[in-house]
Amino acid sequence: MVLRKSLFVPGPTNIPDVIRKAMDVPMEDHRAPDLPEFILPLLNDVKKVFKTISGQVFIFPASGTGAWEAAVTNTLNPGDKVIAARFGQFSHLWIDMCERLGLNVQVVECEWGTGMPMETFREILSADKSGTIKAVLATQNETATGVKTDIGAIRNIMDDANHHAMLYVDGVSSIASVDFQMDAWGVDLAVSGSQKGFMLPAGLAIMAASQKAIKASENASMRRCYFDFGDMVKTNATGYFPYTPPMSLLRGLRASLDRIFDEGLENIFARHSFLAEGVRQAVSAWGLSLCAKEPQWYSDTVTAILVPEGKDANRVIKHAYHRYGLSLGAGLSVVAGKLFRIGHLGDLNELMLISAISGAEMAMRDVGIMEVEAGSGVAAAQEYYRKMGRALDHK
Amino acid sequence: MVLRKSLFVPGPTNIPDVIRKAMDVPMEDHRAPDLPEFILPLLNDVKKVFKTISGQVFIFPASGTGAWEAAVTNTLNPGDKVIAARFGQFSHLWIDMCERLGLNVQVVECEWGTGMPMETFREILSADKSGTIKAVLATQNETATGVKTDIGAIRNIMDDANHHAMLYVDGVSSIASVDFQMDAWGVDLAVSGSQKGFMLPAGLAIMAASQKAIKASENASMRRCYFDFGDMVKTNATGYFPYTPPMSLLRGLRASLDRIFDEGLENIFARHSFLAEGVRQAVSAWGLSLCAKEPQWYSDTVTAILVPEGKDANRVIKHAYHRYGLSLGAGLSVVAGKLFRIGHLGDLNELMLISAISGAEMAMRDVGIMEVEAGSGVAAAQEYYRKMGRALDHK
Amino acid sequence: MVLRKSLFVPGPTNIPDVIRKAMDVPMEDHRAPDLPEFILPLLNDVKKVFKTISGQVFIFPASGTGAWEAAVTNTLNPGDKVIAARFGQFSHLWIDMCERLGLNVQVVECEWGTGMPMETFREILSADKSGTIKAVLATQNETATGVKTDIGAIRNIMDDANHHAMLYVDGVSSIASVDFQMDAWGVDLAVSGSQKGFMLPAGLAIMAASQKAIKASENASMRRCYFDFGDMVKTNATGYFPYTPPMSLLRGLRASLDRIFDEGLENIFARHSFLAEGVRQAVSAWGLSLCAKEPQWYSDTVTAILVPEGKDANRVIKHAYHRYGLSLGAGLSVVAGKLFRIGHLGDLNELMLISAISGAEMAMRDVGIMEVEAGSGVAAAQEYYRKMGRALDHK
Amino acid sequence: MVLRKSLFVPGPTNIPDVIRKAMDVPMEDHRAPDLPEFILPLLNDVKKVFKTISGQVFIFPASGTGAWEAAVTNTLNPGDKVIAARFGQFSHLWIDMCERLGLNVQVVECEWGTGMPMETFREILSADKSGTIKAVLATQNETATGVKTDIGAIRNIMDDANHHAMLYVDGVSSIASVDFQMDAWGVDLAVSGSQKGFMLPAGLAIMAASQKAIKASENASMRRCYFDFGDMVKTNATGYFPYTPPMSLLRGLRASLDRIFDEGLENIFARHSFLAEGVRQAVSAWGLSLCAKEPQWYSDTVTAILVPEGKDANRVIKHAYHRYGLSLGAGLSVVAGKLFRIGHLGDLNELMLISAISGAEMAMRDVGIMEVEAGSGVAAAQEYYRKMGRALDHK
Repeated sequence: MVLRKSLFVPGPTNIPDVIRKAMDVPMEDHRAPDLPEFILPLLNDVKKVFKTISGQVFIFPASGTGAWEAAVTNTLNPGDKVIAARFGQFSHLWIDMCERLGLNVQVVECEWGTGMPMETFREILSADKSGTIKAVLATQNETATGVKTDIGAIRNIMDDANHHAMLYVDGVSSIASVDFQMDAWGVDLAVSGSQKGFMLPAGLAIMAASQKAIKASENASMRRCYFDFGDMVKTNATGYFPYTPPMSLLRGLRASLDRIFDEGLENIFARHSFLAEGVRQAVSAWGLSLCAKEPQWYSDTVTAILVPEGKDANRVIKHAYHRYGLSLGAGLSVVAGKLFRIGHLGDLNELMLISAISGAEMAMRDVGIMEVEAGSGVAAAQEYYRKMGRALDHK
Repeated sequence: MVLRKSLFVPGPTNIPDVIRKAMDVPMEDHRAPDLPEFILPLLNDVKKVFKTISGQVFIFPASGTGAWEAAVTNTLNPGDKVIAARFGQFSHLWIDMCERLGLNVQVVECEWGTGMPMETFREILSADKSGTIKAVLATQNETATGVKTDIGAIRNIMDDANHHAMLYVDGVSSIASVDFQMDAWGVDLAVSGSQKGFMLPAGLAIMAASQKAIKASENASMRRCYFDFGDMVKTNATGYFPYTPPMSLLRGLRASLDRIFDEGLENIFARHSFLAEGVRQAVSAWGLSLCAKEPQWYSDTVTAILVPEGKDANRVIKHAYHRYGLSLGAGLSVVAGKLFRIGHLGDLNELMLISAISGAEMAMRDVGIMEVEAGSGVAAAQEYYRKMGRALDHK
Repeated sequence: MVLRKSLFVPGPTNIPDVIRKAMDVPMEDHRAPDLPEFILPLLNDVKKVFKTISGQVFIFPASGTGAWEAAVTNTLNPGDKVIAARFGQFSHLWIDMCERLGLNVQVVECEWGTGMPMETFREILSADKSGTIKAVLATQNETATGVKTDIGAIRNIMDDANHHAMLYVDGVSSIASVDFQMDAWGVDLAVSGSQKGFMLPAGLAIMAASQKAIKASENASMRRCYFDFGDMVKTNATGYFPYTPPMSLLRGLRASLDRIFDEGLENIFARHSFLAEGVRQAVSAWGLSLCAKEPQWYSDTVTAILVPEGKDANRVIKHAYHRYGLSLGAGLSVVAGKLFRIGHLGDLNELMLISAISGAEMAMRDVGIMEVEAGSGVAAAQEYYRKMGRALDHK
Repeated sequence: MVLRKSLFVPGPTNIPDVIRKAMDVPMEDHRAPDLPEFILPLLNDVKKVFKTISGQVFIFPASGTGAWEAAVTNTLNPGDKVIAARFGQFSHLWIDMCERLGLNVQVVECEWGTGMPMETFREILSADKSGTIKAVLATQNETATGVKTDIGAIRNIMDDANHHAMLYVDGVSSIASVDFQMDAWGVDLAVSGSQKGFMLPAGLAIMAASQKAIKASENASMRRCYFDFGDMVKTNATGYFPYTPPMSLLRGLRASLDRIFDEGLENIFARHSFLAEGVRQAVSAWGLSLCAKEPQWYSDTVTAILVPEGKDANRVIKHAYHRYGLSLGAGLSVVAGKLFRIGHLGDLNELMLISAISGAEMAMRDVGIMEVEAGSGVAAAQEYYRKMGRALDHK
């Protein structure tokens, strides 16, 4: 029995009905005289989600990976040195992309399950007196391990070191779900996608660049055309796009922003934190461990849960999918088979999370992880949600 | 926090996406030359759900209540005597309608929570040698109390008594969810609505009449026009309707029937029985009682749960709605405040039911019914679903 | 080649996307604590469309025919005398219903294509000094012949005759498309349906009753239950319904009313009149005649067009449907084969009407009505729309 | 008055309801175990539209412009010489992209309104004995001028010259609307997008590469990552994508392909040709000229219409939009203000085209182009559609 599927991967996330409907539109002329009345406020409102006033927002018809490429190719030159930590599959893929695009990446290898090593970055940046490092790459939320990074802290380190590299942040699975402050944290390139906190299908690379980054883009010599900032800046200013924009997704983005502002960014962050802690309470009640090794790194958008030694997390995932229609995230690369992930970002509430916890609980027991007691995770989450949820609603 | 609502009233039920989309159509000409190609198979397929070959199916633009009225006004004469048991709000309302329409109703009063009293009916029918009773009214599933009735048993009683009254069955919250055998059980008028087992919005009165009932309708002298069988029989035969039919609901009904046949009627019945038992296991783990007093009466489409003496079930219901976005059914009339109901019919699976059980559990604890242990109901349902679900899937 | 169909029957009408989407909702609990917040303003806003302040609005899950039945059975007694003119299929059907429901109908037979014979009514009403006539039935727009009636004039006649019968108006194909003033015209029972000016699928009988009618309903002895005003009045007052309402249609009705008020009732009437005249200009350019015999009777929601003697209008209709995907209305009963109808009510604009005119033009020529010159009707409509449309926009 | 807009730009095109609904889906896990069952046949079916058996199909989350970039960056080296004709805005933009990406483009300048100059290409290719030209760029349908190019003829020229350059074809506004034969014509890179013949929103770059192109991609040294063929080939082979795919568009693409195969590619081509000729008949009746200078270049997907000297085509376009809700295509760059365009590709039929012709006709007269006689274009199109449509249906 499956019938209805339950989606708890860390993106794509569940789309609210109001957003689904907003995308279900007849096609329209992307060169219509009145299109700017729609586009200009849309671009402006995206800035609010990035918490930037001075930055420039870009929306490319692409996945979040395209936003990474746009960030890099518009602002750097072949052979430029950049620094990045590898501590999960997505930080790895970004490093890999930089290398393939011809950058010189200084990789700081970290154990998966830890976050960006602040002190190592501090040392490296302090030592780079001549400023050979052009960019610091940071992953605010490593989706593969459920590990978050304090972007403000990186800014502090860079400031302390008086280092003028640009700061690039992968906020794909964090922006619009947890706090992101582009201007306050001095982020130069912030990268996201439509299918996470924006609660849309994949297809929009949503990003923002600081004025420093825009200036850099004017002289950057890496080849690009599709992802060129310059074309976008020029046509966006008039309320249009340099090539056919994906209008249905843009109409959806309008509804997404309306929904976000309606709930309130800070309320959204509080909700994500609250729901995430319920999942962690469940994991604790199960007697299992997180991949994230310390509370400072616990992600509020995805929890990666280690199964007991000798058990296969992939069996849990497959069984949950086939038997209960529940999609959980898999362990990738180094952690494949060792963990499964519950995504808890986007349009979710307590009852939805409980159904996911319950499904994981049943699936684990079904495949023989009997250490997990029936109902234990659900009970822990329930009690947390009951007690803390009231406080949340009374705020 | 609510965001997404969860619907667990005993109708309307959750609409599968495929059915929602089937109804989301441009309007069409209900007199189009090719409409019969759509209508004739549709009417025929509805017969399969009623398990009738010889019967005639009717679809009126109306709620299920309209089907009751159609059944009565088409086949009876003013002052006719009919017999019915009152053991819940819906059997009561039907009796009330009959009285208002001018019938002479012999009411058998029963305790709410019990089912139709078979022996009483046997006695009455056996005693009515002259056949003054023209109709026996039976409620297959009393939605208000979660009590089912064995329609086949009533047929047997009527046959034993050699009584020729017509048998009218309210199958609103049973047909298409639990077994209903119009021909085998000798049902003359079977009444249902779109918003329960058919997984559609309210708006279609779906019913079937035996040939005996059709014959009766030709001479029945109660006044009716909108709900007249004769007009319907005549125009339906050509693939049309006597007045503008609700085409979007009919398109939805097509998708509903496709879905029903795709899953298979017997599989649907097994699924409902399986899901219902999980709910009952939860109630038992909570230490609470059902409104239905004996297992023979346990409904597989709705469970009415008595809260402990001195507690107010309506507080549970309101709290569940406002705090968790969970719609539960209320106690009606005699049982108001004493019970809440979990509807478990239509498009549901284990994880959905668990979210409802969990929500009820949390809501009860929130309003001070601390007898209910956190996670207890969920754990019981989970273990039942885990163990018995496999068997179900292996069938 | 057909692919997309074009709907130009006089109802159901084209549904605007915003309304289609408003109906495409998950099911919801019709007994939810906050439902009245939705229902009460909805009922109130329907009153604005009927232009009534003192009246009571009713929404039944039914087609417009159900509204006729509700009007009659709630307010009259068996054997009551009512008066009505028969001058088309829909006025005929209403008369027929009254007779079947046991009323004594004084029928004034008129030629189809003419409107209600005011002077005859004046004479009859003036002669009925004893007030044996309990109700005057008027069809504001006879959909079958494209003939309108001046309801205000009937009121004047009744007032002149000092007659106290109630005034019943069939506004199914007029209300929300052309002006209807319930209070100003002293209408007691006004009847409509969802699938015409309200731009919804069929399924809602939308009607209003004056206080005089409500009072009459308290003592009226015709049997009814499903369509009972009393139950409705009582539960509607609390924001609920006596039985499961068709929530998706009610959500659609909300969107419909928003759309209607957004455009503005008077603008809607002006638009209908403007579009209708374009169609009549086309008919005139074709050298054909309307079924409506005099301009005073020309309907602004549907035009019935007589084909030349000896030609078969049904061939035009079938050909238009099969060859061009164009649904035109057929001639019914007495005028079958003699005319085809273009519905021009609801969500329509000039280009849409022109495509219908063009399709009719092509279909007529295709089946051998070569009197109709290619492009003639379109050219006439175009020129009218060009010239008068500007005035309309400048209003 | 506008209400409903009419879309007649040459892309995005009207989306059939069945495709709109197919995209309106809950999000799903793009790493689900059963996703390959959906993806593998999808990719295979796209090949049928390109008429390639040996080629490899790619679907990138991007607009058609992204497909151009993918074609170029995957298969060429910096500084490579390519040849292209500039005869409209889209051939110009492709040339511009190549230059920005570091290629050496030999541009053959042509008058806008003419097609690719076959003899010039023959001379150039024949003269290039050493094979310095690595790629021939051809635009099958220049959307800006409504000019088509015979791709098979280019292949012949290349073969005649025994030239081994790769052949790149921009089929954005032609593929799936007019005939395209990748294998038969020896096309190496064929580029399209979702928002034209595929009747989807923009957002998918749909393209195909020959085995020769795939081989070239293995050594091509232009930098790319997002648009890399290699990553795509590897993951597509398993039924997945290298990064999050836009699932809703892919579900739509499935419905699009089903629709295309249901109608039949050859029938689609015939329909486009038929509808296009009706538009040209209208233009001729108006006494106006096409931008395309000779019949051999007449496009079957878009017609660019020159307004009389001294008139401003942009006024026609703006007026049509604001007054009639009709979106026409504008003249771009060199031809701005001189022409307007009627797109006639995708989901269209006769009545729809006639509404566009009518709207253009009215708009021209409204802005003072009185040379155009009222109804003249419509009449000409109608008569053409009437006569030739029958033949089409009898095929």
